[in-house]
Amino acid sequence: MCGIVGYIGTKQAQEVLLEGLSRLEYRGYDSAGIATIEKNVIRVEKKKGRLQNLVDFLEKKPFRGNVGIGHTRWATHGVPSDENAHPHFSLNKEIAVVHNGIIENYMALRDELTGLGHRFISDTDTEVVAHLLNELYTGDIVETVQIALKRIRGSYALGILCAKEPDKIVAVRKDSPLIVGLGKGENFIASDIPAILKYTKEVYLLDNGEMAVLTKNEVTILNAAGETIDKDVFVVDWDPGDAEKGGYDHFMMKEMMEQPKAMRDAITGRCAEAGAFFSGLHLDEEMMKHINRIQIVACGTAFHAGMVGKYYFEKFARISVEMEPASEYRYKNPIVDKNTLLIVISQSGETADTLAAIRLAKDKGAWVLAITNVVGSSIARESHDVIYTNAGPEIAVASTKAYVTQVGCMLLLASYLGQLNEKLGKKDAVRVCNGLAKTPELIEMVLDTQEKIRKFADANHEIHDLFYMGRGLDYYTCLEGSLKLKEISYIHSEAFAAGELKHGPIALIEDGTIVVAVCTQEHVFEKMLSNIKEVKARGAYVLAIVQESHEEIGSEVDEVWVIPKMDDDITPIPTVVYLQLMAYYLAVARECDVDKPKNLAKSVTVE
Amino acid sequence: MCGIVGYIGTKQAQEVLLEGLSRLEYRGYDSAGIATIEKNVIRVEKKKGRLQNLVDFLEKKPFRGNVGIGHTRWATHGVPSDENAHPHFSLNKEIAVVHNGIIENYMALRDELTGLGHRFISDTDTEVVAHLLNELYTGDIVETVQIALKRIRGSYALGILCAKEPDKIVAVRKDSPLIVGLGKGENFIASDIPAILKYTKEVYLLDNGEMAVLTKNEVTILNAAGETIDKDVFVVDWDPGDAEKGGYDHFMMKEMMEQPKAMRDAITGRCAEAGAFFSGLHLDEEMMKHINRIQIVACGTAFHAGMVGKYYFEKFARISVEMEPASEYRYKNPIVDKNTLLIVISQSGETADTLAAIRLAKDKGAWVLAITNVVGSSIARESHDVIYTNAGPEIAVASTKAYVTQVGCMLLLASYLGQLNEKLGKKDAVRVCNGLAKTPELIEMVLDTQEKIRKFADANHEIHDLFYMGRGLDYYTCLEGSLKLKEISYIHSEAFAAGELKHGPIALIEDGTIVVAVCTQEHVFEKMLSNIKEVKARGAYVLAIVQESHEEIGSEVDEVWVIPKMDDDITPIPTVVYLQLMAYYLAVARECDVDKPKNLAKSVTVE
Repeated sequence: MCGIVGYIGTKQAQEVLLEGLSRLEYRGYDSAGIATIEKNVIRVEKKKGRLQNLVDFLEKKPFRGNVGIGHTRWATHGVPSDENAHPHFSLNKEIAVVHNGIIENYMALRDELTGLGHRFISDTDTEVVAHLLNELYTGDIVETVQIALKRIRGSYALGILCAKEPDKIVAVRKDSPLIVGLGKGENFIASDIPAILKYTKEVYLLDNGEMAVLTKNEVTILNAAGETIDKDVFVVDWDPGDAEKGGYDHFMMKEMMEQPKAMRDAITGRCAEAGAFFSGLHLDEEMMKHINRIQIVACGTAFHAGMVGKYYFEKFARISVEMEPASEYRYKNPIVDKNTLLIVISQSGETADTLAAIRLAKDKGAWVLAITNVVGSSIARESHDVIYTNAGPEIAVASTKAYVTQVGCMLLLASYLGQLNEKLGKKDAVRVCNGLAKTPELIEMVLDTQEKIRKFADANHEIHDLFYMGRGLDYYTCLEGSLKLKEISYIHSEAFAAGELKHGPIALIEDGTIVVAVCTQEHVFEKMLSNIKEVKARGAYVLAIVQESHEEIGSEVDEVWVIPKMDDDITPIPTVVYLQLMAYYLAVARECDVDKPKNLAKSVTVE
Repeated sequence: MCGIVGYIGTKQAQEVLLEGLSRLEYRGYDSAGIATIEKNVIRVEKKKGRLQNLVDFLEKKPFRGNVGIGHTRWATHGVPSDENAHPHFSLNKEIAVVHNGIIENYMALRDELTGLGHRFISDTDTEVVAHLLNELYTGDIVETVQIALKRIRGSYALGILCAKEPDKIVAVRKDSPLIVGLGKGENFIASDIPAILKYTKEVYLLDNGEMAVLTKNEVTILNAAGETIDKDVFVVDWDPGDAEKGGYDHFMMKEMMEQPKAMRDAITGRCAEAGAFFSGLHLDEEMMKHINRIQIVACGTAFHAGMVGKYYFEKFARISVEMEPASEYRYKNPIVDKNTLLIVISQSGETADTLAAIRLAKDKGAWVLAITNVVGSSIARESHDVIYTNAGPEIAVASTKAYVTQVGCMLLLASYLGQLNEKLGKKDAVRVCNGLAKTPELIEMVLDTQEKIRKFADANHEIHDLFYMGRGLDYYTCLEGSLKLKEISYIHSEAFAAGELKHGPIALIEDGTIVVAVCTQEHVFEKMLSNIKEVKARGAYVLAIVQESHEEIGSEVDEVWVIPKMDDDITPIPTVVYLQLMAYYLAVARECDVDKPKNLAKSVTVE
């Protein structure tokens, strides 16, 4: 995580940097800082806590200068503090550095540099970079950075200022995201597009190992060998307004409300008369004949979308799927060969563990298909095939519209593969498309019930624990609902496959414990009723979510929330919206900072 | 769950029934009751709460009579109460019934019988059986039961008394366990062997659909068609003392202390000069050539042993394994054919969902290999191949010695399969056996550190939440440790793959939250260190478990528990013993009933 930004031009750098950082706070917000150059002197200011602390401070004592770098931090090495915030400074105050990533060999470098007389004031891994550049400085900062990188192991996006060369910014990346924004008489660097969208839509998407040297009027890109290269300009098609709250209290609410549109955009053009299809996909009938193994790898919310996908693939394409969190997959010597299809899911397209999983599987010959929301992201670029979820920018840390579109894309893909390998007939393929076509409207119906959910939250926000249970597809929806609640309300919630409850977890049920029983799957409805009776017998307060054909469950439980009658395979999409709203209103009732939950960051670009 | 027992002979039935129930309390203990016949009159007494309540009551007003049935309940339909306790009685007081299982069509039967004038006094599904038998009674209770069973859907082990035929007990089973004990001038029924071990070691293991008619001097077995059949007598080789506490405060402690012996018994005779082997296994090199799919299915603790097994199979035999909780597998139309090997794991061998999974997979042609602790159990009998864990009877609800032997057997089996398909060389096969041979001693070493663990528990027993994190094998150990803690201490604990923590769960970490970081795997040790830094930066109190080669971690964490240096693949066995002991001492410090945790039962014989 962490967000970095840089500016060189004619404006006051401070303004551009603070504006950019405010767009990057979703990447981390435990401290922030900026550095600018004024008359060959670098000044650094950094503050623990939210960006606002830094803004307040700089309002009183503004920095001047037309070139600068900024950083908003998500702690990995060392607690959040003023000292550990970026930018980091060399002892002679001639080099300032902002960094996203982890320098793996920082302990050894630190020992070496300390021996040479450099004094460290932070606990970070980053600080070694500033001292190392100081130590190696040849009079040419570009050359110095090239030499220094040979000594550094790990992942990094770096923004570098040098007091002796005040007319340039040097930027370089490996395994952490970095883009360059191209203006008129001004240029930018940033971790992500929203940081600079106010100023330009033209960007370079730096690849691993590439370096950018920015002056006011020019950007030079060098490859890892130090040769100047030509790079395509990528034109962003987002509107700046897409990254604003649009009148809602929180980005999360705005994004939940956008879900009908997001689902529509995810489906549009992907349902033909004969069922699902994806234009431009290389994965075809011929290739599928050779695929004998499908693996799905993802993290967090995307992992839950993957579990739903596994269910769909097995049901419609009758192909077994192995499912693994990316952080586990990459370190276990997975069984992969050229007949393997690896499907990865990542909203940001920058998730570090997922990216590593792709590289590992590609090395062993796998075909990689990515499902992601961000065009031009690292994961999109490194995969053989990409399906975009088309959900639009997601800013809130807790993913909502990205999740429902991921699930929708998984269903389409499963249906497509089922048609390719002739396990799914045309009639069922059309049924899937028709079901998906109704989801925007189904989501609207759930969004219209917010008053009920707010009341539930107001009445119950003081709970410490909450449990979810379900079977089959409902179980995966429970997992996602539970994660949402954890993320933003800090209530310790947990989801269980309902049949597993009595093998241990039921011991946690006490008088009044809330159990959310998701019961939308017809073929296991009776089994869910038995499980509900078991937890009721131990005193649980049961909130059931059912299709309206089962409203009679009201006589067995304490509260019922209903979704319209629909195809069982479609239910995860409207159902999860109930659980998102429940998490949201519980968090609001507990006065939590919904968009910027404690300890979390939006896109996890460190391992 | 639920335990049933019955006696007919010359002793006072009450004594035998209460003694038997005391051995079955691990199957449920929210209420208990008995019925006896004295001079053609059935008397029933039943009490909410522990068996002791019933014992105390009957001490003052003992029942007389030499024939009777008894029951200890684990609630499924209706809260624990005197009314819902078994035996259930017909309105005319001529029929009494004890039942283990679930009558699925009880609502319809109840409506029908109410219409015929029967009055229901409980909320249970069972009560319909008593009224139905009353309604259908032909003058011959055996014939009546046969007629009644045609009307009943669901699972059941039934023990039935009829006042008009006071010299017999009728017993029948479908999908719930039931055995018949054979004495001299006396006979028994019971859910499980320990209930009658004091009186006889000769038993019939009833199969599904079979009925037993007991008199004092004779037992007749009828098949589902009503024909008398011959059945083999099964001779139990347990010693009655095996089911006693042997001087420890709790069965759980006794069983944890027995783990070195249990591991020795699990390995003995299964390690030859060239590596692992299993005598009597039908699964051989020839059969393995046809296996292209391995699935592991289990519940609760056994599911965690399965996850460790999956890791071993993939590492040593290079075969992908699909893993599913039995309750999910059986309702999802799993992809199974004659080239599928299904491996199931169950301590008791009676787990209802697992048994159903076996039947489903067998119907589709799979080869089923069971790993279980109970010889002659339903799962053992219905599987094609069985590997016994040889852990001896496990009485405490929280499984300990069964788990470590399950893990040991999985490692042996993975190594065996790896040799069969030539992915594992002799050298590595021998390494596995040598590693396993050391586990009894390694477990001893951990068991010797109890004082330290008790102190930790005394200092921390007031916590509400606790988290575990690990990678690879350590993650599965964390899952099992977390389940243990939930089961017996009611602390809300949760285990995470350490790399997933920052995708949401880390939001739950506050100042002082205890995080148990299991870091025994060399290849991800550095990654665990990064994860530890992340939770430390949010204020966590970190207890790390490491191999002694990494004791230096002490400078990074708050507390370190060490296991000796060993092969990474062996670590789950000694490590989990630390987590068992931690759960045990936290539960004791919280004054919980360790052997009989709230809401739980030992062997889950309902779905």
